[in-house]
Amino acid sequence: MNLNGIFPPIPTPFARDAVDHRALAANIDKWMKTRLSGLVILGSNGEAPLLEDAEADAILETARKGIPSSKTMIAGVGRESTAATIAATRRAAGLGADTVLVRTPSYYKNVMNTDAFVRHYTAVADASPVPVLLYNVSMFTGVNLLPEAAERLAQHGNIVGMKESSSDMAQFAEIIARTPDDFTVLAGSGTTFYAALSAGASGAVLALSGVIPDICVDLYEMVQKGRHSDALALQRRITPLAKLLGASYGIAGLKYALDQVGFTGGPTRPPLGTVPVDGQRRIQEELASLTARV
Amino acid sequence: MNLNGIFPPIPTPFARDAVDHRALAANIDKWMKTRLSGLVILGSNGEAPLLEDAEADAILETARKGIPSSKTMIAGVGRESTAATIAATRRAAGLGADTVLVRTPSYYKNVMNTDAFVRHYTAVADASPVPVLLYNVSMFTGVNLLPEAAERLAQHGNIVGMKESSSDMAQFAEIIARTPDDFTVLAGSGTTFYAALSAGASGAVLALSGVIPDICVDLYEMVQKGRHSDALALQRRITPLAKLLGASYGIAGLKYALDQVGFTGGPTRPPLGTVPVDGQRRIQEELASLTARV
Amino acid sequence: MNLNGIFPPIPTPFARDAVDHRALAANIDKWMKTRLSGLVILGSNGEAPLLEDAEADAILETARKGIPSSKTMIAGVGRESTAATIAATRRAAGLGADTVLVRTPSYYKNVMNTDAFVRHYTAVADASPVPVLLYNVSMFTGVNLLPEAAERLAQHGNIVGMKESSSDMAQFAEIIARTPDDFTVLAGSGTTFYAALSAGASGAVLALSGVIPDICVDLYEMVQKGRHSDALALQRRITPLAKLLGASYGIAGLKYALDQVGFTGGPTRPPLGTVPVDGQRRIQEELASLTARV
Amino acid sequence: MNLNGIFPPIPTPFARDAVDHRALAANIDKWMKTRLSGLVILGSNGEAPLLEDAEADAILETARKGIPSSKTMIAGVGRESTAATIAATRRAAGLGADTVLVRTPSYYKNVMNTDAFVRHYTAVADASPVPVLLYNVSMFTGVNLLPEAAERLAQHGNIVGMKESSSDMAQFAEIIARTPDDFTVLAGSGTTFYAALSAGASGAVLALSGVIPDICVDLYEMVQKGRHSDALALQRRITPLAKLLGASYGIAGLKYALDQVGFTGGPTRPPLGTVPVDGQRRIQEELASLTARV
Repeated sequence: MNLNGIFPPIPTPFARDAVDHRALAANIDKWMKTRLSGLVILGSNGEAPLLEDAEADAILETARKGIPSSKTMIAGVGRESTAATIAATRRAAGLGADTVLVRTPSYYKNVMNTDAFVRHYTAVADASPVPVLLYNVSMFTGVNLLPEAAERLAQHGNIVGMKESSSDMAQFAEIIARTPDDFTVLAGSGTTFYAALSAGASGAVLALSGVIPDICVDLYEMVQKGRHSDALALQRRITPLAKLLGASYGIAGLKYALDQVGFTGGPTRPPLGTVPVDGQRRIQEELASLTARV
Repeated sequence: MNLNGIFPPIPTPFARDAVDHRALAANIDKWMKTRLSGLVILGSNGEAPLLEDAEADAILETARKGIPSSKTMIAGVGRESTAATIAATRRAAGLGADTVLVRTPSYYKNVMNTDAFVRHYTAVADASPVPVLLYNVSMFTGVNLLPEAAERLAQHGNIVGMKESSSDMAQFAEIIARTPDDFTVLAGSGTTFYAALSAGASGAVLALSGVIPDICVDLYEMVQKGRHSDALALQRRITPLAKLLGASYGIAGLKYALDQVGFTGGPTRPPLGTVPVDGQRRIQEELASLTARV
Repeated sequence: MNLNGIFPPIPTPFARDAVDHRALAANIDKWMKTRLSGLVILGSNGEAPLLEDAEADAILETARKGIPSSKTMIAGVGRESTAATIAATRRAAGLGADTVLVRTPSYYKNVMNTDAFVRHYTAVADASPVPVLLYNVSMFTGVNLLPEAAERLAQHGNIVGMKESSSDMAQFAEIIARTPDDFTVLAGSGTTFYAALSAGASGAVLALSGVIPDICVDLYEMVQKGRHSDALALQRRITPLAKLLGASYGIAGLKYALDQVGFTGGPTRPPLGTVPVDGQRRIQEELASLTARV
Repeated sequence: MNLNGIFPPIPTPFARDAVDHRALAANIDKWMKTRLSGLVILGSNGEAPLLEDAEADAILETARKGIPSSKTMIAGVGRESTAATIAATRRAAGLGADTVLVRTPSYYKNVMNTDAFVRHYTAVADASPVPVLLYNVSMFTGVNLLPEAAERLAQHGNIVGMKESSSDMAQFAEIIARTPDDFTVLAGSGTTFYAALSAGASGAVLALSGVIPDICVDLYEMVQKGRHSDALALQRRITPLAKLLGASYGIAGLKYALDQVGFTGGPTRPPLGTVPVDGQRRIQEELASLTARV
């Protein structure tokens, strides 16, 4: 299983209230023709918290059909309860996931400390048929999986890496410093993609890379080859789009952008909304600028 | 339906991995012999985010059997997706809930603004067979349903009130000021119970009131009768226990305290943990102090 | 010295770049004809952090001339360094301050913990010729003087009270609970003035009370007499103006409002700015509403 | 004037209550024998908020005597009031500062928005005899000078750069992207020193570099020469010490470390304190490790 390189967290296309499996399969086919290392299914950008378990399982099934064994299929399985997380992990493994990405439980914030996280992830990793990736995404969860927790959990034989979505490079760098060299740390923020790579990230899970896969892979390879100034210049060009698809408009922005470049984004599931007209224009401008100049 | 007075958000007793319905029923019987106005089933303290839908439904069924029609049964039904929230609302109403308590969706924090909340709650209230209560609990959700949103939503004919768990009395008071007199605002923080009542709260949803129901009702009635200095003195006595069952130890603390006073609290569901020995001692001391002196 | 009741933190009128002592004296004369218990000179609303030491001393001199011994003159003396705070305290005492209000040092936030605060305030109180009031105003300082620190410092013979500006009634109530009955706790937030009084505050330092002194004293006296529902109703009427003179426009709002009711507010000192036209209109409306209906 | 490279923000040595000018001069002599590009005098690490104006002026005088014209002397001059900042700026320029570093005013947080910052810095830059550097240090000020503000201010002919102390590389990178190429952006966080350089920083103002100047200059030069993996490896080695002298112990830690390596650190000025014994041991260990292995 390859955990280096670029992995888009793919959105879930909907047709009215149901998952649009035809569009999903078509999207995946397109992504599989690029240099992406694999896909993240049922991540935050996949609207996973808005899906029923049966929908999630069906999505994994469709995804695995479209993802060849040479590419890595990462399945998001985080739930609030440890037992439900384990159940989702087992289902995902049974449906062909190469590895699972386990978001921190976060509702009971006042007691979600390092000890609680270590208990949770240890139980999940003990039970998981496939290797486990930790997932820290404070902008959504409101909790923080500290470098100390990552250090302790990296000792577990079935925990092979982590996605850290923060743009705080002090924390990102500390995680890398406190975990073994073969512990994979993936970046999750498009605006600090290059910064994370230069700090030692093995790759990235980027919403942006579903829309402009080749540009993201280019940037990754530039850093691999030591072409830091080229990579930095490219980062500056993609940063505005990364912001639009992230902090500004989130999944609605990502889906709108995908619709513009030949994929099926489609509507979000409520309570998520749409991109306002001004935001649509800005996304189009950034896409045009990136297409024209690269 | 009476929404004034005191409503404990009851915890869910577990026997190993399953819900202990016998203990649940026994707990409810005891509470029904007090002056509590009703119960909140499947609230945050009920470990609702850790339950499966089938478990939640069964709990509501057991609860309705134990709660006479003279007492109010409030069911927590909040989900991240609007559609899932509506489905849970309809099931709860079908199982006899008098009203539903709908926590804000909160995962996609960057887009959960007033417009998104108004869309979400309007759709839920349109579809709900029973009256709807808004529920703002920033300490768990990391989002804030602003007074402006409450003002707009209070105009909906099927939204009859709100539980506001903040200890920020500026926000609490502003909600009361911006909503009609017949819009019920319930407090949700034990440490500011009296402050909220004196600011105009109609009652409270307090974890504490599952443990010391009579004392909480006493305090409520003191304020009703204008005995503010007595109420304030009583508040000071219960504040330490309120902190222990809230910010300090949360549900594990609540369950431990219930075990001490003749109810079945029992274990929490992982990743929630237990109360450390020192915390157990402090809870016992506060319980002893309250029993001895009241 | 009387520390009960209402104390406006008075602004500093400027004529061009200098303090306008004539306007200051005239303002004080007017306030002295009301039922206010005294004045806070050189508080946050007095633009103290924007004044030179010589200006501050001159302001205290003018103030003391206008404040009879029957009214309490409270002088703000907080500085970042302990030594500078002690020097300012001695100057203020020499110029006739009845007590000093000592804001927490706050620049080096990462090391401003309870131990540091206890050291600082103990040194100041040891050296001060007059009684000392602690002052916690997190909205400006970004640090928090915890109830634990207040409890420890309340044991010092020369520390007689505290101004707590938070609207978090849990913290406010805890401070009152953990300090002796003769330790004066003053509220500092206009939007939670009534809530703080009902929680046991001895009085309040309110920007609002410089503009509508009689209404604020009325509310205070209502609570003293147990007329809680009247007090709550009055709180609701003053809350909008409290917000405008606080979180919305701050000192510029306070000065504008004073100009409307016959005092001299005048310009702020840069980098503070002015109230936008829309804000001016809203302040005028609230003032008209309060004048018309009380 | 050279603004590229490494600039330690030097601490202020005290002998009892007074500035120890002899020790200050001796420290400066040592630093001037290294490859540092210059020094920052009266920065946050210089305990500037704890100094009187006369002390500050005397420190600048001593510093200028020890800093040859081939090295850059940067003087911290930020005050809360615009007028006081201008006065401090003029005095610093008169005492030989090559440029001034102007911390954001921050006390009145609710009104310190982009417009207020633009007004403040424009007035200071208009009046300053020497070029001006913006200075954003949210960890101390609690306010944030946004990239938008930096973009607007970078157009002023007398504002030549900025020190940004955040470890959030998204914001850091955005500032660089939105300002002209000849606008100098200096990093201010030791734990993200390499990340900031690889994101395009022209250099850094690092407390750490007063203690291990050569190692910090080495890291800077590695990035200049494209030796990113060497720089990253070196960053990992200095990160623990950077944390100890920053978030953990601050100026007390910096002074303690300087005492260990032949400079005079000495005591801090209260309310700042000392490094606990455990922290002293950790600082010694990191120093030994860095000395032994580099």
